[in-house]
Amino acid sequence: MKVLVVGANGQIGKQVVEKIQKEGKHTAKAVVRKEEQLSYFQDLGAETALVDLEGSIEDIASAAKGSDAIVFAAGSGGHTGADKTILIDLDGAIKTVEAAKQAGVNRFVMVSAIGVHRRENWSSEIQHYSAAKHYADVWLENSGLDYTILRPGGLTNDEGNGKIVAGIDLDRGYIPREDVANTIVAALDEKSVIQKSFDLVSGESDIKEALKKL
Amino acid sequence: MKVLVVGANGQIGKQVVEKIQKEGKHTAKAVVRKEEQLSYFQDLGAETALVDLEGSIEDIASAAKGSDAIVFAAGSGGHTGADKTILIDLDGAIKTVEAAKQAGVNRFVMVSAIGVHRRENWSSEIQHYSAAKHYADVWLENSGLDYTILRPGGLTNDEGNGKIVAGIDLDRGYIPREDVANTIVAALDEKSVIQKSFDLVSGESDIKEALKKL
Repeated sequence: MKVLVVGANGQIGKQVVEKIQKEGKHTAKAVVRKEEQLSYFQDLGAETALVDLEGSIEDIASAAKGSDAIVFAAGSGGHTGADKTILIDLDGAIKTVEAAKQAGVNRFVMVSAIGVHRRENWSSEIQHYSAAKHYADVWLENSGLDYTILRPGGLTNDEGNGKIVAGIDLDRGYIPREDVANTIVAALDEKSVIQKSFDLVSGESDIKEALKKL
Repeated sequence: MKVLVVGANGQIGKQVVEKIQKEGKHTAKAVVRKEEQLSYFQDLGAETALVDLEGSIEDIASAAKGSDAIVFAAGSGGHTGADKTILIDLDGAIKTVEAAKQAGVNRFVMVSAIGVHRRENWSSEIQHYSAAKHYADVWLENSGLDYTILRPGGLTNDEGNGKIVAGIDLDRGYIPREDVANTIVAALDEKSVIQKSFDLVSGESDIKEALKKL
């Protein structure tokens, strides 16, 4: 499979590209916003595309054409305003879903955030972020695509150990970004997670086993 | 009909309540956020309810119970940040749609903004606002309710003259808030605008005629 990784320069996206390229089973196409970000991924042997998520659906679709799956790992990040939360985390995600449909890419893995599917779980400081993520997730769930939505808990930079808990409604917890990336890569090969949305934190089960039980 | 006006203290909402009460054909129930806003509407003989759109769907549904139609004229306004655009213009609107379904109120008139249904029309300074309004509109269109979405052009405080143009895609233009309010009140009695979304600016046609032709 060729896997388009949108938000490849992000902390999770980068590890997804690295793992796909290292594993060698699939190939990654890294989507980044800035020209100076390209060479890192070219050095990994990945294909690349320069796309601004604030651009048109057509721009994204043309990068997606010929891919077999899309991983959406982009985010406006904590350093920008809530206007960018709307334009990237909500509208950018939805445009990518529409681009997948236009380009005929059926498989779509979304990186969301723990608990955003339940409004009563939205923590007050980042309520607007939770809302943006939630509505992007709902759009994907209604898209007709073969989606998987991962909702990881608090992200850490610890080394991953490949052990998780995955479930519809989990208590808050933490997970290394590396294990989120591991779970994304595993999800690409796991049919049982198609049409599923689930919370994800560090735990006791091997990733593949945990995904199979969903 | 009893018409629940959400955002009654806003510049359009206020005129909607006034016109409904003056006309005497229907009755208005004014939904406001602050206690000191209640007396103005009580003096008009309108029912009132105190609801914070950042609260729960259930709060809104309990205010909506027993109404026959909802007018959503709320907005976070230009003085707050984009986080409130997400929480009021997007999530508040969507919660009100869900509350309408919960409360069994089938008729829903939404005040949107010109051109937000086409991403290429979003003007760059308020792109995030356009996105929020757009996704709220899409949610309503998919809700199964008897919706009407009015997308007025630039709002002025001029006196209304009851003359408009209404159409799926209009060039940018202006319209007095009073004529938006007149159009909302007329739309409540006009079956031909059910399941319709349209741009709205000042023009040459009487409101009722313009609505009938949609």
